[in-house]
Amino acid sequence: MEAAVIPGADALVLTAAHSGVRVCFANPGTTEMPLVAALDRVPGVRAVLGLQENVCTGAADGFARISGHPAMTLLHLGPGLANGLANLHNARRAHTPVVNLVGDHASWHLPYDAPLTSDIDALAATVGTVHVVPDRTSVGDVTRRAIEGAHRLQGISTIIVPADHQQRNAVEPPAEPANITTRAHIPEDRIHKVAKHLRDSRSRPVILLGGNALSRAAQQAAWRIASSTGARLFCETFPARAERGAGLPNIDRLPYFPEQAVAALKDASAVVVAGAEEPVAYFGYEGIPSVLASPGAIVELARPTEDAETALLELDGILGGTTSSAASTSQPEQPDDSAVLTGAAIGEVVAAGLPDDAIVSVEGGTSGYPFYTASASAAAHTVLTNTGGAIGQGLPCALGAAIAAPDRPVVALQSDGSGLYTAQALWTMARERCNVTVLIAANHSYNVLRTELARHGNSDFGPQATALTSLADPNIDWVALANGFGVGASRVARVAELRKALDNAIAIDGPHLIEMTI
Amino acid sequence: MEAAVIPGADALVLTAAHSGVRVCFANPGTTEMPLVAALDRVPGVRAVLGLQENVCTGAADGFARISGHPAMTLLHLGPGLANGLANLHNARRAHTPVVNLVGDHASWHLPYDAPLTSDIDALAATVGTVHVVPDRTSVGDVTRRAIEGAHRLQGISTIIVPADHQQRNAVEPPAEPANITTRAHIPEDRIHKVAKHLRDSRSRPVILLGGNALSRAAQQAAWRIASSTGARLFCETFPARAERGAGLPNIDRLPYFPEQAVAALKDASAVVVAGAEEPVAYFGYEGIPSVLASPGAIVELARPTEDAETALLELDGILGGTTSSAASTSQPEQPDDSAVLTGAAIGEVVAAGLPDDAIVSVEGGTSGYPFYTASASAAAHTVLTNTGGAIGQGLPCALGAAIAAPDRPVVALQSDGSGLYTAQALWTMARERCNVTVLIAANHSYNVLRTELARHGNSDFGPQATALTSLADPNIDWVALANGFGVGASRVARVAELRKALDNAIAIDGPHLIEMTI
Repeated sequence: MEAAVIPGADALVLTAAHSGVRVCFANPGTTEMPLVAALDRVPGVRAVLGLQENVCTGAADGFARISGHPAMTLLHLGPGLANGLANLHNARRAHTPVVNLVGDHASWHLPYDAPLTSDIDALAATVGTVHVVPDRTSVGDVTRRAIEGAHRLQGISTIIVPADHQQRNAVEPPAEPANITTRAHIPEDRIHKVAKHLRDSRSRPVILLGGNALSRAAQQAAWRIASSTGARLFCETFPARAERGAGLPNIDRLPYFPEQAVAALKDASAVVVAGAEEPVAYFGYEGIPSVLASPGAIVELARPTEDAETALLELDGILGGTTSSAASTSQPEQPDDSAVLTGAAIGEVVAAGLPDDAIVSVEGGTSGYPFYTASASAAAHTVLTNTGGAIGQGLPCALGAAIAAPDRPVVALQSDGSGLYTAQALWTMARERCNVTVLIAANHSYNVLRTELARHGNSDFGPQATALTSLADPNIDWVALANGFGVGASRVARVAELRKALDNAIAIDGPHLIEMTI
Repeated sequence: MEAAVIPGADALVLTAAHSGVRVCFANPGTTEMPLVAALDRVPGVRAVLGLQENVCTGAADGFARISGHPAMTLLHLGPGLANGLANLHNARRAHTPVVNLVGDHASWHLPYDAPLTSDIDALAATVGTVHVVPDRTSVGDVTRRAIEGAHRLQGISTIIVPADHQQRNAVEPPAEPANITTRAHIPEDRIHKVAKHLRDSRSRPVILLGGNALSRAAQQAAWRIASSTGARLFCETFPARAERGAGLPNIDRLPYFPEQAVAALKDASAVVVAGAEEPVAYFGYEGIPSVLASPGAIVELARPTEDAETALLELDGILGGTTSSAASTSQPEQPDDSAVLTGAAIGEVVAAGLPDDAIVSVEGGTSGYPFYTASASAAAHTVLTNTGGAIGQGLPCALGAAIAAPDRPVVALQSDGSGLYTAQALWTMARERCNVTVLIAANHSYNVLRTELARHGNSDFGPQATALTSLADPNIDWVALANGFGVGASRVARVAELRKALDNAIAIDGPHLIEMTI
């Protein structure tokens, strides 16, 4: 029996659907039109439109972090991919499998250097692996390899498919899923070696958790290990996904500024990395080391892409510590109803007001750091953070999480400066009726840059430095902006107003934005 | 006498100021803080903040197209550059000299692959030349070479300067401007050869104008040449900058769709390119050639980066044709006050309502094509178009033009889909009190994609194709969006309303947005 022939675009979408792709975050152009038509002909992949590509790529990252399924994007040529690279950078740092589809000019048109021609391959290679479809018969195979590669490497695959190979007849791919690899199991001898390190440590060791060591089971195991060995626990500074709240131990993040992180680690002769990278300074500052742990202190239990969760459970079994769960964390004192909003007050109010099983996408320091501190005592929830530092990640990530988990409430706790990068995400939240409560911490400045200017010895800012770190003159009106994108919104300035607005926003269906004046 | 030492960042800004850089469109981060401080210490370069980097790079393009001065951007690491690449792609296709400054991690911190580390060099190389500052003593020299290179190649230079080389003492650069090259003069024998082609042409020849052949003097010369030789004149489809209106001949653009362009050129045995690229199809379509002119028909007068204007004046001298100016173009019939708005009606009303010496940034086909047709009879003005097809160029380009020419009225005639890519540009227009009238043609769809879907044989769109080409559900409220960014706005649906709103918007100081419901 001969294999059926179908358009290349159909073969591509069919292969993706067979391999677990359920959603494609898209902003297509002319060279992707056959793929757009295929999304209607081939069942199984839901298309979600973003108004700019960094919305699509950030949403794909958030979707995959929550669903565990591969996420797909559809982007138009080199400029479309370029627009989405910043959030692909973040996804790369989060070790999120993302598969980008980029149409290209028809293969026979490429040599003529038409206006939209550019080096797509070079752009894609900066964030992951590149899979160019060489002819119409290879569409299915290349797609399968790209999806398998994204999973195997826990990273970004980009499929570049010329328009003619989308249109012409390809071979219908077999209805088998791609071979999806899971996280590598840690060999027993490595776990025993770590156990020995923890038992023999000359000083209080540290265990730094990241990757799937931030699941509920893994955090509980880490807490038992810490109880039996005297180890201190830290969570990596910017986790891709961390469970948090109700019943979990209160594991602080490793501090962001290197002086504080060095101080936190300096007495540890062993720093066990469990699903986390070896800790390095976020930026280099004169006189402060790039490597945060003491020389020779790092002991590897699991790399970020390995199965740190199972390794911690096995390590706990070897060490045979307590079997009790972490004690519940006491509620921090709540700010007065009449108090004005500060980063700290917002963190406390949001943590206290979080519904059960929420997903919280956190971007920005103003209320993000205080929230993380306060959230140990919150209801059980999942936190997503900005893993790569490319700002504009929080709103798209919340969007993708909401598409992945329509029954869970999503909160986007967002600083204003980074929120403005991809405010277009609000529109897709409205269109897709996502249950996202967007909380904008509106201090109308790039506050982190003022801190950094001061660190560089410029405490007295001139007018240009002041202007370049200010979002005032005019202030952004986030309520108007949200309404412009079809999202209802309100503005609050006091603790009582925030409490009420937060409750209301969580209760309603669909998105709502709250501008928090601080 | 020894040279004075100053911080590397100061040496960089000083070299730029000496070389004619007057404005820097910026969105800096931690690794650019010494440069931000230097912008206050070193006089001469005005910093303009954009809320997202594609606003900065598009504004730099618009600024340089209008001012003729080199434009500069300041971008944060790889992700900041990535966010600005789409409009750098357009600037590259416009042959606009742009110099990007990108800070990098301190050179000694780079090996540790901190979260924000990425391959900046590879990203920058996709749009132009890359100039990495290797040590603190080279800052001035590298900056000078990058600026000279941007001018010589009429393209994009990116300076990557590690944070430590910005901070430490460099040698104070000499107070001499960089060696700015101008457009290459066309050799006399080439001009004579073109003259012979035009005289001897077996059929009516075509002259295709681009680059500086779209100045007033060059268009007049082309008109005289056409009068004496029987040549037909076309303007390239997407000119970087074209003078238009009052007293100029009505030179149509070469049609966008290749069937029509092929038809326009098919009888010409000679197609003289004067500052334009050899015409190729924008996209490849099965059965339609990529190359639009007949084989062997192209005759080169001037490449896009060469001095086509002087070449046309010399060619006119050789051919010795008429000395009269082009006849004035008659006003097209104006639509009725009570008529609803269509793309055609908008084009006619805006052309008729244009003030003297306006700059019009046009992006999008809905009202853009009709406007270009109608604008032959408008007051004298300058048109800027999207040269590279990366959408989101119109508003940033208008912003940059307004900064370059504060005394000229600027009109941004903008389709809604592309406008949403970089709507953040509105805020900078408000902050800098730019005299920009933003006209949004709001059809709430990616209409061009529906045309392309139909061209691909999909006339019956499925629900996903419909959703992916629709900006409705919910409709964007551009009045609210503009207000959110601090820009006053109004909405019109009839011809009379548009006429009145346009007059009002042009009369007031600062930006105003008009949403045109079509």
